[in-house]
Amino acid sequence: MPKPIYVLNGPNLNLLGTREPEIYGKQTLDDISGVTAARAKELGLACDFRQSNLEGELVTWVQEAREKASGILMNAGGFSHTSVALLDALQAADVPIIEVHLSNIFRREDYRHHSFVSKAAIGVICGLGAQGYALAIEAMARILNDNTT
Amino acid sequence: MPKPIYVLNGPNLNLLGTREPEIYGKQTLDDISGVTAARAKELGLACDFRQSNLEGELVTWVQEAREKASGILMNAGGFSHTSVALLDALQAADVPIIEVHLSNIFRREDYRHHSFVSKAAIGVICGLGAQGYALAIEAMARILNDNTT
Amino acid sequence: MPKPIYVLNGPNLNLLGTREPEIYGKQTLDDISGVTAARAKELGLACDFRQSNLEGELVTWVQEAREKASGILMNAGGFSHTSVALLDALQAADVPIIEVHLSNIFRREDYRHHSFVSKAAIGVICGLGAQGYALAIEAMARILNDNTT
Amino acid sequence: MPKPIYVLNGPNLNLLGTREPEIYGKQTLDDISGVTAARAKELGLACDFRQSNLEGELVTWVQEAREKASGILMNAGGFSHTSVALLDALQAADVPIIEVHLSNIFRREDYRHHSFVSKAAIGVICGLGAQGYALAIEAMARILNDNTT
Amino acid sequence: MPKPIYVLNGPNLNLLGTREPEIYGKQTLDDISGVTAARAKELGLACDFRQSNLEGELVTWVQEAREKASGILMNAGGFSHTSVALLDALQAADVPIIEVHLSNIFRREDYRHHSFVSKAAIGVICGLGAQGYALAIEAMARILNDNTT
Amino acid sequence: MPKPIYVLNGPNLNLLGTREPEIYGKQTLDDISGVTAARAKELGLACDFRQSNLEGELVTWVQEAREKASGILMNAGGFSHTSVALLDALQAADVPIIEVHLSNIFRREDYRHHSFVSKAAIGVICGLGAQGYALAIEAMARILNDNTT
Amino acid sequence: MPKPIYVLNGPNLNLLGTREPEIYGKQTLDDISGVTAARAKELGLACDFRQSNLEGELVTWVQEAREKASGILMNAGGFSHTSVALLDALQAADVPIIEVHLSNIFRREDYRHHSFVSKAAIGVICGLGAQGYALAIEAMARILNDNTT
Amino acid sequence: MPKPIYVLNGPNLNLLGTREPEIYGKQTLDDISGVTAARAKELGLACDFRQSNLEGELVTWVQEAREKASGILMNAGGFSHTSVALLDALQAADVPIIEVHLSNIFRREDYRHHSFVSKAAIGVICGLGAQGYALAIEAMARILNDNTT
Amino acid sequence: MPKPIYVLNGPNLNLLGTREPEIYGKQTLDDISGVTAARAKELGLACDFRQSNLEGELVTWVQEAREKASGILMNAGGFSHTSVALLDALQAADVPIIEVHLSNIFRREDYRHHSFVSKAAIGVICGLGAQGYALAIEAMARILNDNTT
Amino acid sequence: MPKPIYVLNGPNLNLLGTREPEIYGKQTLDDISGVTAARAKELGLACDFRQSNLEGELVTWVQEAREKASGILMNAGGFSHTSVALLDALQAADVPIIEVHLSNIFRREDYRHHSFVSKAAIGVICGLGAQGYALAIEAMARILNDNTT
Amino acid sequence: MPKPIYVLNGPNLNLLGTREPEIYGKQTLDDISGVTAARAKELGLACDFRQSNLEGELVTWVQEAREKASGILMNAGGFSHTSVALLDALQAADVPIIEVHLSNIFRREDYRHHSFVSKAAIGVICGLGAQGYALAIEAMARILNDNTT
Amino acid sequence: MPKPIYVLNGPNLNLLGTREPEIYGKQTLDDISGVTAARAKELGLACDFRQSNLEGELVTWVQEAREKASGILMNAGGFSHTSVALLDALQAADVPIIEVHLSNIFRREDYRHHSFVSKAAIGVICGLGAQGYALAIEAMARILNDNTT
Repeated sequence: MPKPIYVLNGPNLNLLGTREPEIYGKQTLDDISGVTAARAKELGLACDFRQSNLEGELVTWVQEAREKASGILMNAGGFSHTSVALLDALQAADVPIIEVHLSNIFRREDYRHHSFVSKAAIGVICGLGAQGYALAIEAMARILNDNTT
Repeated sequence: MPKPIYVLNGPNLNLLGTREPEIYGKQTLDDISGVTAARAKELGLACDFRQSNLEGELVTWVQEAREKASGILMNAGGFSHTSVALLDALQAADVPIIEVHLSNIFRREDYRHHSFVSKAAIGVICGLGAQGYALAIEAMARILNDNTT
Repeated sequence: MPKPIYVLNGPNLNLLGTREPEIYGKQTLDDISGVTAARAKELGLACDFRQSNLEGELVTWVQEAREKASGILMNAGGFSHTSVALLDALQAADVPIIEVHLSNIFRREDYRHHSFVSKAAIGVICGLGAQGYALAIEAMARILNDNTT
Repeated sequence: MPKPIYVLNGPNLNLLGTREPEIYGKQTLDDISGVTAARAKELGLACDFRQSNLEGELVTWVQEAREKASGILMNAGGFSHTSVALLDALQAADVPIIEVHLSNIFRREDYRHHSFVSKAAIGVICGLGAQGYALAIEAMARILNDNTT
Repeated sequence: MPKPIYVLNGPNLNLLGTREPEIYGKQTLDDISGVTAARAKELGLACDFRQSNLEGELVTWVQEAREKASGILMNAGGFSHTSVALLDALQAADVPIIEVHLSNIFRREDYRHHSFVSKAAIGVICGLGAQGYALAIEAMARILNDNTT
Repeated sequence: MPKPIYVLNGPNLNLLGTREPEIYGKQTLDDISGVTAARAKELGLACDFRQSNLEGELVTWVQEAREKASGILMNAGGFSHTSVALLDALQAADVPIIEVHLSNIFRREDYRHHSFVSKAAIGVICGLGAQGYALAIEAMARILNDNTT
Repeated sequence: MPKPIYVLNGPNLNLLGTREPEIYGKQTLDDISGVTAARAKELGLACDFRQSNLEGELVTWVQEAREKASGILMNAGGFSHTSVALLDALQAADVPIIEVHLSNIFRREDYRHHSFVSKAAIGVICGLGAQGYALAIEAMARILNDNTT
Repeated sequence: MPKPIYVLNGPNLNLLGTREPEIYGKQTLDDISGVTAARAKELGLACDFRQSNLEGELVTWVQEAREKASGILMNAGGFSHTSVALLDALQAADVPIIEVHLSNIFRREDYRHHSFVSKAAIGVICGLGAQGYALAIEAMARILNDNTT
Repeated sequence: MPKPIYVLNGPNLNLLGTREPEIYGKQTLDDISGVTAARAKELGLACDFRQSNLEGELVTWVQEAREKASGILMNAGGFSHTSVALLDALQAADVPIIEVHLSNIFRREDYRHHSFVSKAAIGVICGLGAQGYALAIEAMARILNDNTT
Repeated sequence: MPKPIYVLNGPNLNLLGTREPEIYGKQTLDDISGVTAARAKELGLACDFRQSNLEGELVTWVQEAREKASGILMNAGGFSHTSVALLDALQAADVPIIEVHLSNIFRREDYRHHSFVSKAAIGVICGLGAQGYALAIEAMARILNDNTT
Repeated sequence: MPKPIYVLNGPNLNLLGTREPEIYGKQTLDDISGVTAARAKELGLACDFRQSNLEGELVTWVQEAREKASGILMNAGGFSHTSVALLDALQAADVPIIEVHLSNIFRREDYRHHSFVSKAAIGVICGLGAQGYALAIEAMARILNDNTT
Repeated sequence: MPKPIYVLNGPNLNLLGTREPEIYGKQTLDDISGVTAARAKELGLACDFRQSNLEGELVTWVQEAREKASGILMNAGGFSHTSVALLDALQAADVPIIEVHLSNIFRREDYRHHSFVSKAAIGVICGLGAQGYALAIEAMARILNDNTT
């Protein structure tokens, strides 16, 4: 059986649905987890969906993904803009990475325009809300398929 | 019958398949047009797929889209980074806009990290090659559906 | 008979009246053309009023103005902030130039605070809407009068 | 009887006519006062024309204008580029403001390219010499008329 | 009974009294906790006083405060200058926030002059040592009172 | 009898209550003077409360404070961000200084994020409205007490 | 018969001889075309000499050069400093490129010091007027010779 | 009888002798006035020695100097670094100007490294304390002598 | 018996030997621990060798080192470039600190050129791989010896 | 007999042929000297070809050239980017100067993009290897001819 | 017999022991030479220890090292921060290079934080005084050993 | 007999009188040497007047001055703006230093506005031509006198 895709969510994403819904939408992280898993299942893939407010825990999960995952979907939240440690982990991960953001970070404050995660990702999807996760799964499926054929 | 989605491609995208394939992939613009149209059709949508090397022609197409299109997929190529004129047209367009780039512009030269198009787009998809267009169509379908219901 | 004043309008100004009226006002470009021509006529002057979305066409019109116009009113729209080519044409034009903007560009986004056109213009009028064109004609009349007397 | 328009002039404008005439023109401040008053009169308006070298006095006049003036024409001279205090007063003034400069500040030294006054003004007229004041009066007349009708 | 005020202290504040006393004063964090609680009690308020060296734990406490606290006093220490994650949590918190620093961060190194916490706080008190906490409690009491009346 | 605390207010603070009340609150400067004096009296202190729109007059008052005041509360308004002269005076003053701002300057425009006054102040209180003055008096009382014991 | 060298000239170069002769010299573009062709002929090469004010037309010519030219001489005029689209075309061209400027751009305004064209060119010749074209032809001849032997 | 040299001193220089003597020395402004006058007298010159904390008053004195002084010695104190208004006055003054600073401003804080006054002065003397005034008088004597012979 | 030297390793250093060996070398963290301990033993010193992906845990270990260690060897990995919290802990530690990096951070990406750790360290050793740890131990031995004699 | 052209080469150019041949080519400095002299001879000119690693020696040679040379070809190597002293000498030299670089400095590291030499040179030739010297001689011949006729 | 290691010292290092001993220590350059030679001898290596105040002489020594040395220890002193010429020589040297500084340059003035030498060095040792040289010899021995085995 | 004052002149100052006299004046360096020596003699002092184009020779002279001179007058010419090595020597010199420039460097190009020499000098005199040397001698006499009494 294939390794799952790690879907890793950073700080404050556990608040989804209640936190500033005009920016982040009304769906909860559970809703997104459901949508993501459903699309993965359609494509014959499994997801391991996690969230943490701890930078170090996210680093550890990314390290773990090197062995146990076939790919990483990463929404690092606020750490996207500040964490070299996370970038280092991602650059060492040796599996395909897709970065996801619920909001369009380029229409928000200046300090959100730069993401360290982008430097390690194959691609970036932002501003498309919960659907962005499903699209990223779809893209991942194609990438994994291309790599294995 | 619903208005088509304008899929507008900027300078040099007519070279796809031959130009630096290690960055932009091996598919031609026709291939991408085909992929995009196919996905649109599956979702009950139509595309109007165009390319121009002229900034002003792209501006005019965006203006036209205000009346004749239900949404815009925009890959402005090199103009993404330099064209306020295009941004002005997009901000006036009043239809949903999704920005697409074939390559992950954030892993390339510094002058590609900033896009004026992003400031007018709902969302951005980059680095996912030709598939990015199909994903953008999918996202657009959802957005149009949400708006009309 | 005296040469006309070229009143050159850049990208997206053809949208006036419909595009973001809270910024650009409700008058169309035709309305502005009328207001401008009327004031010119009162002052014994003629106008040649044009609009283009193409940077190169504007460059060509400015070049043409060297021979055929007595002065230039320039609202370069988005090209104001990005076009060295237009500046080069204006600096070679050898006729009086007045820059006009409908909105007060200094209260808007940072990238609108700098204008290449300003470096070639005698004066700048911005934020006064359609009336700004009429005022610029009035200023031009004075400048032309001063030069010829 | 309507309230007058305050025409407020900042430091060194009392030198006009003698100070660097190749930049500021040959007219004295009295000449400009005359031109301004004349145009105002034609339009059924009155002016209160003042000059001060003291930033604080200009702040106080702007404060006074909140009650006693129908609008402000502001040529803050060197304070334009440095005075947050003046900007604060203008932003509190609640009457229409038009900024005027005799010279085209955008063709001069870098430190003259930014004006705090612009952030509080409806519009800006610069580089048109003494006539710029008359044009500003004309613009103000239109604005006041639009507001009252 | 009313919800307590969360008084959240970031990294290294547990060292107070021993760490660089010429900057941070001689009082320990326990002393400060006592002073803060005493003032709160005088004003009919309760405090929940915590310290953590973990950014993620602070994020989690701020999230918890959305439900369980009536307000937040935040001295984020070194995280003030670097943590977008903390800012995101605070902006989602929906309770009044006051930022406190023991030292005057504006007289110290450049990298301490900017605080992400300030962007989410109603007010900031810095440089007033342990007393700053008591003053912040007093300010919070007023804010809570204003909100409920 | 002890020397009073100079409470010095800069440009435009005389407008309080009428100027942009959503930023600065509804209290007038007289109200604030009253609140400040009352708190001072409770603590056995006297205030000398002044306001000026003139940078030079504020400089002179700060100089005077070296001899005649026991401490300075400084709300320099717009001069906070631009006046080296005021900083020089404060650095020479040799009495404790606390900076106060009614609004949280760190949530406003970029040019308000830096204050020269902060470099000479023991502490800063901002964003807490009129109450900020009372809190500053309380802090000053403690500082004066510490210095004299 | 060998493919010609494309000699591509950007905006305003059609004005040569009349436009600011103290900077650009007295020769017209026809003169330069003649000088260039003559030198090419001496070296057994042919030129295809063109000029356009349209960025997109230049992009298209560069694209065409991939098939039809043996090398490109590029004087992009004002587009040198602003056009990523042109750079993209040049980087895809796969033929040797030499950049030419009539004036020494490094002794002129700051915004002329950076050229996107330089990033795709083998070499740069500037400040040597019309002769610079002839020298570039000579250099191109050597490069083509080296490549084919 | 020749016109005097205006020796103009800016804000806080009235504090000399008491203010931070380790930076500014122990001499009072009266001492410096004496030293300056003595040296002037030796050289057959007269001084008009003034000090003001008001930027506007300094501007006015500089304006006055155009008529009544043969030269200006300017120690603008804190205004050196911030006052465009003063620079404008100096540039209009048409008499020789020498800038003096008691301390070496280039060894102090960054915001003291730039002086607007320098842009209008023939020469600058700084860091040499009260003697710097005497040396400046000596330099002025030479300059006036050279101009008149 | 003397206190040990704390050898603290930041995020991702647990991956050594597998992660990008062309940058970080082939030795595992265990290998490095062995080399470090061996050299320490030769010099009569003991090491306490730790690694964490959690910024807060590293902060806590540094705090602990104030009491329990004679010195700190710090390789903070990605936190070197971003953590003010870690710098604060180190500046409070009061034991000698040597910074170590396996790679030469000055030949890598720009964001690795600055290290907050450097501001608290006596010395820095970078680019010398695992041997750098042994050299740092040797340097620490000398420093401790100098301090105690 | 005419004065020779000084061909001055800066630091490390004596290494040519061995140093990084993929950047600087395989020809030695002697080869280049030969090529340069040959072309000069064809054009009736003589060269004085020198190299030094000492900035001061190059400065002295440039000074000498004022008297003894008819023109200067300058490849200042690494000093191009850092030496104001060399620029000062060149600006005083009063003979035509052409700057040459073997490599295209604009495609290399950022610190090579700026050259002080460019500010004193009539023209710049870079990226064309040893041939660049011959082309520069040709350009110099034309310039000298134009000047003398 | 193996080639020696060149130990090259830049400007002012001849002053060691007398120059600012609180920064650079009390040992003279002769002392350091002795320490370095002793450690080298222990490891079967020889040193050639030199110092120069002349940038060009250092460049020449580095060039010489290409042939005559097995490695370079470089303390370029003040040239570290300014010399592209030295960097060019080092990049051409083709032997291992280790950079040494006596002081921790990252705790000193900003202009010392960047070193061109670092870009050519395998590793950097700074802040460890004279011992740093011995440690660098030790590291060099390892590197040379690794390269030859 | 007292030690002489070293008067050290940097690159290109040997050209004085011929080089750009509108900037540097008509006097030769010999003239200046004469003026300086004369003033020194009047004040009972001796000068040792030197010039070099070699940065390293100037460094060596400054080092020598530590032993053999009572003070240094330094006009480092172009090295003022670029030489950290010279600054290091000056900071180690332990004798009073006065910086002199013939021209007012603050009215010239931006890269002349910063001087490393200023950071080691007691005072700076610039823009006063040859007389500036004499004034510096006078200032030095006072400083030496103050130090010895």
